[in-house]
Amino acid sequence: MASHDCIVAYEPATCEFPIQNLPYGVFSTASATSPRVGVAIGDKVLDLAALAAKGLFNGPLLADCATDLFNQPSLNAFMATKPEVWAEARARITELLTAGAGALDEATQAEVLVDMADITSHMPVNVPEYIDFYSSRTHATNVGTLIRGAENALQPNWTAMPIGYHVASTSLTVSPAKIVRPWVQTTSPTDPTAFSFKPEPALDFELEMGAFVGGPANAQGVPLRINEAHERLFGLCLFNDWSARAGQKASYVPLGPSIIGKSFISTISPWIVPFAALEPFAVAAEVLDKPLAPHLRDDNHIVYNVDLSVDIITPGSNGEELPITRSNLTYLTWTHAQQLTNLASTGAPILPGTLLATGTISGPNREQNGCMLEISKLGKDPLVLPTGEERKYIADGDVVVMRGVARGDGYQIGFGETRDVVEAALPPSFWGIEE
Amino acid sequence: MASHDCIVAYEPATCEFPIQNLPYGVFSTASATSPRVGVAIGDKVLDLAALAAKGLFNGPLLADCATDLFNQPSLNAFMATKPEVWAEARARITELLTAGAGALDEATQAEVLVDMADITSHMPVNVPEYIDFYSSRTHATNVGTLIRGAENALQPNWTAMPIGYHVASTSLTVSPAKIVRPWVQTTSPTDPTAFSFKPEPALDFELEMGAFVGGPANAQGVPLRINEAHERLFGLCLFNDWSARAGQKASYVPLGPSIIGKSFISTISPWIVPFAALEPFAVAAEVLDKPLAPHLRDDNHIVYNVDLSVDIITPGSNGEELPITRSNLTYLTWTHAQQLTNLASTGAPILPGTLLATGTISGPNREQNGCMLEISKLGKDPLVLPTGEERKYIADGDVVVMRGVARGDGYQIGFGETRDVVEAALPPSFWGIEE
Ligand SMILES: [Ca+2]
Ligand SMILES: [Ca+2]
Ligand SMILES: [Mg+2]
Ligand SMILES: [Mg+2]
Ligand code: NI
Repeated sequence: MASHDCIVAYEPATCEFPIQNLPYGVFSTASATSPRVGVAIGDKVLDLAALAAKGLFNGPLLADCATDLFNQPSLNAFMATKPEVWAEARARITELLTAGAGALDEATQAEVLVDMADITSHMPVNVPEYIDFYSSRTHATNVGTLIRGAENALQPNWTAMPIGYHVASTSLTVSPAKIVRPWVQTTSPTDPTAFSFKPEPALDFELEMGAFVGGPANAQGVPLRINEAHERLFGLCLFNDWSARAGQKASYVPLGPSIIGKSFISTISPWIVPFAALEPFAVAAEVLDKPLAPHLRDDNHIVYNVDLSVDIITPGSNGEELPITRSNLTYLTWTHAQQLTNLASTGAPILPGTLLATGTISGPNREQNGCMLEISKLGKDPLVLPTGEERKYIADGDVVVMRGVARGDGYQIGFGETRDVVEAALPPSFWGIEE
Repeated sequence: MASHDCIVAYEPATCEFPIQNLPYGVFSTASATSPRVGVAIGDKVLDLAALAAKGLFNGPLLADCATDLFNQPSLNAFMATKPEVWAEARARITELLTAGAGALDEATQAEVLVDMADITSHMPVNVPEYIDFYSSRTHATNVGTLIRGAENALQPNWTAMPIGYHVASTSLTVSPAKIVRPWVQTTSPTDPTAFSFKPEPALDFELEMGAFVGGPANAQGVPLRINEAHERLFGLCLFNDWSARAGQKASYVPLGPSIIGKSFISTISPWIVPFAALEPFAVAAEVLDKPLAPHLRDDNHIVYNVDLSVDIITPGSNGEELPITRSNLTYLTWTHAQQLTNLASTGAPILPGTLLATGTISGPNREQNGCMLEISKLGKDPLVLPTGEERKYIADGDVVVMRGVARGDGYQIGFGETRDVVEAALPPSFWGIEE
């Protein structure tokens, strides 16, 4: 499909947001400051609240509720409906944006299409629950090998279920964001019983994606079966799980890394790509050489072919992006559907807006590793950048950029980016500590 | 102070909700079905939304906003204000309830006081973030001794910081609740690599309390100092952290117990006792024999003397409550203020409504242990009940009742109760498993 098929002009070979994508976000403008739901198309944003106000969602499911769903500061109301509603919205938006269909006259176009350069993106979802999984076998193997050696790289439970842990959803922020280096307690390298309180010396990114769950919540005590989990998957975004490695190491035994290592901030990209847009990129997910528990068996065991990247702009790079990582979502072993099924298997109610972070997505080679902990081998082997700078972890002033793209035949589905800058920790005086 | 000092008659020696208590909850009635904020007093509930509508909150901070704060389905708006507002509300409610003050005429009393027997209690808080701490040294020592032996009972980090982990706040439910035994994957006792999927064989309670955080959120990147943490502590409730022990054991390495072991359901008591009501019961908290990190040092290192109990009604007890545990909140070593300070120390924003669960609160002796895992020594030493029934963990049909009370001079501050019944797991056919 070429650009002339859309009322918004773009270059199909390079545009992140062609008519095949139609990712959802929440935006405002200087002239209309109420956050509302929009869809990215080329270099424009389609204002769904404005469309709804004009009665342009006229299908059987949306005609009476489109304003209620889209004139909202979050996607939760829309997510809370059901796949049939999502499908009707997507079909209607495609129809409205198709050139030659004449569904949107020029005057209306001027009212409902906003320049992306003029918008402010908002956190698109009010997230009731956020789980960080650990579902890339390659990543878990890399980390396990560094910590326990290759023989015992994967713990026995890793191959039995998609393990993960809850993190504070209050830490989620839409990118771009500033990341203030946190203060943490760290352990001494020589005395595991000695702790000191200091700015985190090993601040790290984690290259992840985040899957949003929609649909009506399951009732307390009634799990989701895996086919039901598939129906509840709404869309996908980029996810940078900023991590405080030294604080994490000192605090995570035995209850996990969440409160110190992981909950200070994490960032997501502003646009959520519907799974419907990713269907052409579905591939069979990795099959573990071990029989699965009945609830995790899946006739539709798929993941998506999405290229993922991390680049860094350093104080020494003169604004130039230096490549750090090139990975792919197909390194995800436990799928979004299996993650959700496991999460709900106890009967836990899963509310719309729940975010399933994949965990770091790594390939086997160093240049495919999804975090500095892996790349620098626990900080022992610094990465030498083209500028001559060295990085074990992320330095103050560094900007970390993540991107994702699914490459189609003559078009691509982009995920936008996260782009966060690291700032120095608060001074000791904040804590009343003398320097 | 005798009962005649309050416009609602009660027996001071036994009443849980005397005029010194004034706990907050959210309730509705058959004739007024909108959930709203109320205060328990004797066997009545004072309807704060009705008081506000009559203009009876006339102080400088509340006169213009009381309706906005109390005509709400949760306490969040009120919690989000500040201690001065909480103090003004408490002082005015005390004044209105004081006999002889004449602040509430008989006709008004009839309108704003509802029989507690006629109310439905609702989940009183929309919890943005919930953390389960592990802050009772006695409990951590008991469990550590069972798992690692007395020599290594406490991990080194336990004495350096209040450790904890996030759990799904979507799992929080107001008691009474039914607890459906979850399905989980368990490990084989003989082969740690073999897992099976089955109804949880070791369902447990955990005797905890929950501290709610109020006040305006700290900005992202700006931690709370411990004196600021004190100002943000709103009130305290009973907390039963229902736990799936076998699922927890199989899933918790290395990321913690949250998604399988802990997030299926937890229950809180309907009434939140303000910390202001607990001031007479403040006692010095335990001091660890190790210097603390600067941010955790506290000139006001207090905990509260609250008797805590767990009783059980079994299928064989003919409705009679059988005592299981008698503990006390003074077994909490890391205080609520230290928990909150540690949680926010990385600059994580803490929103009003955040719930800090203490972790299991145990005394050293078996009859003081706060969960069956401790009482039954990991399931190896069943508790024999007076009925002759044995319990390693909780059985289908059991009702678990938790209570808390601070005993004052001629009065008591009660916390009400949690009272939850355990129901059988879903049948294998739910999962398509043949029996
Ligand atoms: Ca993070
Ligand atoms: Ca629980
Ligand atoms: Mg992560
Ligand atoms: Mg607990
Ligand atoms: Ni008296």
